[in-house]
Amino acid sequence: MRNDWKTQMKINASLVEDALARYLETPDEDLSVLYEAMRYSALSEGKRIRPFLVIEFCRLFGGTAKEALPFACAIECVHASSLIHDDMPCMDNDDLRRGKPTNHVVFGEDIALLAGDALITKGYELAARNPFVSPEIALGATAMLLKNAGGFGMMGGQQIDLLGEKNPVDFPLLLKMHAKKTGALIIASALLGCYAAGIASEEDERMRDAALYAENIGLAFQVIDDILDATSDDITLGKRVHADERMQKTTFLTEMSVEEAFTYAKQKTEAAVSAIEKYENSAILADFAKYLLERKK
Amino acid sequence: MRNDWKTQMKINASLVEDALARYLETPDEDLSVLYEAMRYSALSEGKRIRPFLVIEFCRLFGGTAKEALPFACAIECVHASSLIHDDMPCMDNDDLRRGKPTNHVVFGEDIALLAGDALITKGYELAARNPFVSPEIALGATAMLLKNAGGFGMMGGQQIDLLGEKNPVDFPLLLKMHAKKTGALIIASALLGCYAAGIASEEDERMRDAALYAENIGLAFQVIDDILDATSDDITLGKRVHADERMQKTTFLTEMSVEEAFTYAKQKTEAAVSAIEKYENSAILADFAKYLLERKK
Repeated sequence: MRNDWKTQMKINASLVEDALARYLETPDEDLSVLYEAMRYSALSEGKRIRPFLVIEFCRLFGGTAKEALPFACAIECVHASSLIHDDMPCMDNDDLRRGKPTNHVVFGEDIALLAGDALITKGYELAARNPFVSPEIALGATAMLLKNAGGFGMMGGQQIDLLGEKNPVDFPLLLKMHAKKTGALIIASALLGCYAAGIASEEDERMRDAALYAENIGLAFQVIDDILDATSDDITLGKRVHADERMQKTTFLTEMSVEEAFTYAKQKTEAAVSAIEKYENSAILADFAKYLLERKK
Repeated sequence: MRNDWKTQMKINASLVEDALARYLETPDEDLSVLYEAMRYSALSEGKRIRPFLVIEFCRLFGGTAKEALPFACAIECVHASSLIHDDMPCMDNDDLRRGKPTNHVVFGEDIALLAGDALITKGYELAARNPFVSPEIALGATAMLLKNAGGFGMMGGQQIDLLGEKNPVDFPLLLKMHAKKTGALIIASALLGCYAAGIASEEDERMRDAALYAENIGLAFQVIDDILDATSDDITLGKRVHADERMQKTTFLTEMSVEEAFTYAKQKTEAAVSAIEKYENSAILADFAKYLLERKK
């Protein structure tokens, strides 16, 4: 019998954390501060959603967790790097993340900046050096990851978000911002799973279905985030609610009512599920998409 | 007749700048600020030493500038990214670079941080997507670049440098710091040229000679940098001099006199030249090594 998604997510997270701890060992005592800062963020508590997608898409298309693991660690390094830089005083200036002091609070801004640089570079390198796939696959996966993380992907979304704090963001730009800022790495996760399973072309129908699933759950996730910020309370959510309203940020709720937004998220979730349900053993990914819609925090 | 190194460096720089301008075009008007910041630093005045090495090592071993160009642009993006982040207030806090205001002075710290992230990612991506080499070569070159730029390479050297501002650095650690902080990218440049020429293994004698040349000119370059910082002026150098003294940094001049340091740099230059002189048409690289020794800025 297959595990349910929650059990499997814990198993995958544990695999990823063990591998990351090895990949991020200090290679030279003179570099111990930098590597400690890298480990601090990459190994801090988290659900490991992106690695989960890498591993489960690899499994969906006939691969194993072992083949997917270097890619799963790669995407987590890229994600963790973006959080370090996002939290810095010149960006969001957050001193707490999931109840722990942020990287720059612990290590200083200079080391945090470097740790973010080194962690993203390590992530890309783990992808390029995945020993369980062919050179063509490793190269395709790495080039895709670089594109989705870079200025036209995640980092481009961060730029739109930053400028949006000064200038009004309309709905099409809000969609573009989310598609890049969070969507690009979610899509990269699903595609890395496909690459790990040996699918070499992004024109392959399985790759396109994986991207469609990822794009839709990414959007639904963001809509629910906005709804929870507006309707939940501090205790349930585990962070301060109404932040969007206080910051006068454009969100999905600037454009539509809570009910309309939930319907919109539901449609996106259905689109995600229908992109993959034709594949055997897709239940775990379908259940995960439904969980993201129904979550209360 | 072959061009002398100075003429060739100008030709190569112009090729690289034209290509970089294309590679860094704004892909979407909503991302124009980020891409403008990326271009501002990548295309700012510079000698393009690293791209010169990429192209000339490619030529030395039978390749063409065309094959080397994506790698040459890649290394320049990685280098420019490191300068953006190095100049930030939390790092060296420099407001002037090559006679121009630094990136964060023009675009703000938030955009500068992002532009550094996006530029290094673009550099890696250009290497991975070099269309003129085989997938094996592109992958080998990219993995090597990532290793030399990352926490065990350039960024590791930056960490040693940063901590050295608080704790005394002895001479062996100073050498390690330079080998990583600047040496790793100089070596990467020479090796990228070899990869572009179709040499696939770093065990190949030509790769080892290229690395030896690069390691030695990198060291000589750094010694001369320390000498110029101590003995030149702002206008000649195009940046603020006596920075090392103000920051109470360990340099080669902490260990030896200006004369001894120059002799040391001369020995390294000779070692560099002797690593490559057995190859036909190596004069341009030999002359370049000698120029680095004699330069006044």
